[in-house]
Amino acid sequence: MPAFENSEYQERIAKTKASMAERGVEVLLSTNPANMCYLTGYDAWSFYVHQMVVLAGDAAQPIWIGRGMDANAAKVTTFLEAEDIFGYPDDYVQSTVKHPMDFVADLLEEKGWARRVLGVEMDSYYFTAACYESLRRNLPNATFKDATTLVNWVKVIKSPREIEYMERAARIIECTMQAGIDEVRPGVRQCDAAAAIYRAQISGTEDFGGDYTGLVPMLPTGIGTSTPHITWSDRPFVTGEATILELAGCHQRYHCPMARTVHLGKPPQKLADTAKVVAEGLNTALDAARPGVTCEEVEAAWRATIARHGIVKESRIGYSTGLMYPPDWGESTLSLRPGDKTVLRPGMTIHMIPGVWLDDWGVEISECFRVAESGAQRFADFPQDLVVKE
Amino acid sequence: MPAFENSEYQERIAKTKASMAERGVEVLLSTNPANMCYLTGYDAWSFYVHQMVVLAGDAAQPIWIGRGMDANAAKVTTFLEAEDIFGYPDDYVQSTVKHPMDFVADLLEEKGWARRVLGVEMDSYYFTAACYESLRRNLPNATFKDATTLVNWVKVIKSPREIEYMERAARIIECTMQAGIDEVRPGVRQCDAAAAIYRAQISGTEDFGGDYTGLVPMLPTGIGTSTPHITWSDRPFVTGEATILELAGCHQRYHCPMARTVHLGKPPQKLADTAKVVAEGLNTALDAARPGVTCEEVEAAWRATIARHGIVKESRIGYSTGLMYPPDWGESTLSLRPGDKTVLRPGMTIHMIPGVWLDDWGVEISECFRVAESGAQRFADFPQDLVVKE
Repeated sequence: MPAFENSEYQERIAKTKASMAERGVEVLLSTNPANMCYLTGYDAWSFYVHQMVVLAGDAAQPIWIGRGMDANAAKVTTFLEAEDIFGYPDDYVQSTVKHPMDFVADLLEEKGWARRVLGVEMDSYYFTAACYESLRRNLPNATFKDATTLVNWVKVIKSPREIEYMERAARIIECTMQAGIDEVRPGVRQCDAAAAIYRAQISGTEDFGGDYTGLVPMLPTGIGTSTPHITWSDRPFVTGEATILELAGCHQRYHCPMARTVHLGKPPQKLADTAKVVAEGLNTALDAARPGVTCEEVEAAWRATIARHGIVKESRIGYSTGLMYPPDWGESTLSLRPGDKTVLRPGMTIHMIPGVWLDDWGVEISECFRVAESGAQRFADFPQDLVVKE
Repeated sequence: MPAFENSEYQERIAKTKASMAERGVEVLLSTNPANMCYLTGYDAWSFYVHQMVVLAGDAAQPIWIGRGMDANAAKVTTFLEAEDIFGYPDDYVQSTVKHPMDFVADLLEEKGWARRVLGVEMDSYYFTAACYESLRRNLPNATFKDATTLVNWVKVIKSPREIEYMERAARIIECTMQAGIDEVRPGVRQCDAAAAIYRAQISGTEDFGGDYTGLVPMLPTGIGTSTPHITWSDRPFVTGEATILELAGCHQRYHCPMARTVHLGKPPQKLADTAKVVAEGLNTALDAARPGVTCEEVEAAWRATIARHGIVKESRIGYSTGLMYPPDWGESTLSLRPGDKTVLRPGMTIHMIPGVWLDDWGVEISECFRVAESGAQRFADFPQDLVVKE
């Protein structure tokens, strides 16, 4: 049932152990659902309760710890043996008297790991302050090290099989974006356009199905385009307004995101002009994205292009993407922005999304690409122009 | 744009302040997206970066703090004045050198709240260990108190308007569940059934649209039914296998969840029998769910019924639901389980979901209800039987 051959998981585990050794982490406690999936194949919507994968540098295989009722999900979706799967009793769930990490601490003690250097993902979505407090209280002889992005950086270079999944996600986003653009029409309710988008995104193609995405479809419209993360309402689209579609295709949890902007009726000149500048800046930055170049150099190519047209943008223009779970499809590693000196390497996969948001309107046009020896290779094939529906 | 009248937000703020005073919390830092929405109307998919609503007991209104690009979303979706909305610069996002909570701490200092008793939601999804470390480091003179479920308990009793939104969500889940059942057929891919479910869920009805749900549609099938949180795959449904549909309708972020079980072909006797017992236990427990009764007493009614049929279940059979964001639609307050002595009161809204999961199969039948003076009032009207498709 796991999405990859066992040999691929073993390679990931070996790379993760090497990174742990480099950073002086003896036992890694990974609570990020994407990292849990990366290391074991575990795939279920159970991250609303506390769970983790524990990888000790000197253990052959990782172990899974989670809610009892989800232990069968670990049996069904991972390569792990049953004796490496540990479910905690249900009275640990949302209790005011005990915490699931109390159970985890007891198990670490049993395994002989209570005096080790433990790597914890301090700023990972589902590793709460209460989790950390419980572990520190119960394991007073352990040393804690921040390992927030340790696995994230291991998975920043994709394997051929991972790239294949992202290519499938690209086929899905091509259909999904078209479905979205088709439904943005005067009088159509935003929720009905969102429903058509979901349908395309989840059905996928005849050859492979789609999966839920790290962010829900974003379709800010009108004044909503001045800010990127507003979701749909029941109101209809109106002639004279723009709508931004920021969507992704997803397959086996691998994402291919894409943003485009649609205008109903003749667009204001400033919007049409800005869309052209954004596309020009995007393509210039894509041309710059070659192995050996740093993230900030890619951003500088964008910045120089838009500066010539008098546009300033403060926020980053891209980030690593791939295997992720809600609430994000970004991998929290490299960012295309000033100061990020990460050197691009073949196999990196990036969503370049140079959105421009002003006081009461905005525009987004993006591309997801992989870094190949020859330069940036776009995953999807979809026109970049501002879509104008007269 | 907010979903409620300003007076309703002001009532919520007053109740929250009263609870803060009772618990000795002077300034509440709320990072739970549902609580942020409850207090201000804020509604955007921006919880993948750090953000919060701060409510000081002696301030007239709360303030919003988040990423700069999301400040416009706060302007568009909340009742707050522009001067109460604070965006942090983009270089705080996923940075290795600074943390958004450093910005928050500076702002709390400016506001004169740095020496107060600060309530933090220690075990809330998006309040990471790193958030807490930053606040403690930057605010050495503050006193921190756990306020994880302070607002959750304020919102456990729903207003008439909130009940109305949940009734709309009930109309949506009725259509959505039917769409799901219709698509579970031999040869149909699971992803295509999920796509049909999403379409119904998001389109809603002609009168009001649907919203994304706290959990994605769950449709474990075959051996997957032995565990509740597996999502769909590309494989087709097969005659001779069961599928559990655990779905919700959502409107204005208010949920009405529902679970049903479908079997393709003549079901095994043990499945048919267990489904009957589950429905009987569910209805007995619903009859017991009256104002003045405790949560554990409701669970005991279920337990006594199934015990007569030789079934044992360890996990809780229900929880409070309503306004929520991913990754959950449960409110993390009351649970229907032994030891929970919460007394039911009119206006509480609960998802009673007594799933039974065994080694390689399971069954779920659930109801979402409100506690009325007269007893449990089911939100949705949908047959409870095991759905058998010959």
